[in-house]
Formats: sequence, structure tokens, C-alpha cells
Amino acid sequence: MPGRTGGSRAKRKGSLYENELANILWEQGFAVVRGPSSGGGVRRRFQPDLVAMRGGVILVFEVKTAGEKPLYIDGDKVRRLAEFARRAGARAFIAVRVKGGGWRFHSLESLEETVGGNFKLAKPLSGLRLEGLRALVEGWPRLTDFISEG
Amino acid sequence: MPGRTGGSRAKRKGSLYENELANILWEQGFAVVRGPSSGGGVRRRFQPDLVAMRGGVILVFEVKTAGEKPLYIDGDKVRRLAEFARRAGARAFIAVRVKGGGWRFHSLESLEETVGGNFKLAKPLSGLRLEGLRALVEGWPRLTDFISEG
Repeated sequence: MPGRTGGSRAKRKGSLYENELANILWEQGFAVVRGPSSGGGVRRRFQPDLVAMRGGVILVFEVKTAGEKPLYIDGDKVRRLAEFARRAGARAFIAVRVKGGGWRFHSLESLEETVGGNFKLAKPLSGLRLEGLRALVEGWPRLTDFISEG
Repeated sequence: MPGRTGGSRAKRKGSLYENELANILWEQGFAVVRGPSSGGGVRRRFQPDLVAMRGGVILVFEVKTAGEKPLYIDGDKVRRLAEFARRAGARAFIAVRVKGGGWRFHSLESLEETVGGNFKLAKPLSGLRLEGLRALVEGWPRLTDFISEG
């Protein structure tokens, strides 16, 4: 599959970037959970790379690194991420760590399915920036807007 | 601190029980994330033992095992769990795996602070059962009740 990274070096880098994004979102007031990098014992249950929550809004992320070239993402991973988001009542994104720095966020709807059942992100450098993501979160109704303090 | 468990055997058991609860909640339609057992690199960010989400409702859990004797919980852990829940817009619980089987769920309000700044759960076998927890979730307003389908 072109554009896909693998092996332990890529894994370490992936973990580094997950941590970078987790810290950024934590600084912005989100509660953040990273899944275990090994996926230990959770093949049945699927865990996204990152879950970020603020005031009842839930975002789930698959973290990738990319430059200008199209990015290919495993079809099963995307489908399980979508199912996880459906259960949670969350919005799911592919979080792209741009080579050299910065982040772009793509909703799953912007992916194109390939004939082989995987997914292609044609323009990794398009997509929402962090400010756009934050604006999106702030624009959503929050659960706490509708319930009285307990 | 009386009643507190420690060491690697307790850690393995804790992990086993976290996994048991994660599977139970997943079967009930929740999206579930377990934090990394090592806490690798996240001292700054705190991650609860378990986060379970369904239809926009977020529950966070600290998992313990207990019998009839009072359970003592580290004060810092409870305070950080409460802060995590506040950010997320979540309800926080101490999830007690009863020795011999079964689960009880205690909200943080039912804990008593000790003179040393830790917390005491006087009656671990009281608290909500799984059915009670589920009823609570189903009774809460869901974000999706208020927004139209996208």
C-alpha cells in the first residue's frame, strides 16, 4: 500500500506525535486519553490513538504523519474508528502531523474508499487546523447547556 | 494506608479487572478506552483506568477491588480523576470489583476525606450495580437528543 508507514521506527514516531497532540489538547482544556500503544488485549474492542473530551463533546483521532503526498489508511482501521465514534456519540478525525510541524484534521467523510477497501486522503495538508477544530468544538451544543447543575 | 493494595501482583490483577469491566461495558454498547497501565509519559496529564462513552454520555472510572472492609484511595488520584471528569463533562466513579465477583459503582461524592487528605469508601459493597449504572446513563439527556442528524 503506497504511502503507508510501518515498523518500529514509525511506531515510535507515531507515539511521539500522539503525545504531542495529547499535550496540545490538554493545554486547551480537553481531558485526553491515549490508548495503549501495544493494543494489549484489546483486538476485540478497538481503541483509537487518542480520545479528547471537553464539556461533553467527544473527539476521537487516528494519528498519522504526512507531507503533500496522498495518505493511505487501512480500511478496517477506519471502519472500526467510525463504529467507535458511533457508539460514543463522537466526531472522528484523521489527525495529520505535518512533516516539519503543525497539524491538520480530516473528518472521515473526506476520505475516498479505494477499490481494495482501504481509504485515501488525497490532500493531507488540507483539512482543519487546530483553531478550526477548536471553533468546531465551541460551536457544538454541550450537554451541560441542557441540564441543571446536580 | 490500611486497605490499600500495592506491588506488581496487585497491578496485574487490577489490569485483569479493568479488562473485565471494559468488556462488560463494550458488550452493552459503550465505546471504551483503557489508559496505558504504565502511565507512560502521562504523569502530567493523568489518565483514568477506564473511560466509557455512549451516545455523548461519558463515564470515567478508577478501578479497585474490595470486600466488606473500607477501601482507602489516594487523595491525589481522586482529585485528578475529579479534574479529568470536570474537563470532559463526565461522571466519575470508583468501580469496585467485589472479591468473588460482581461490580459496585460509587460516585466521588460518597467518599469521605481522611485527615491525611486521602479518601475512604466506608462500604465498598454498597453503591450502584451494573443495572443501576446503565439506568443512570439511559436517564441522562443525550447530546443527540438536541441536535439534528448531520
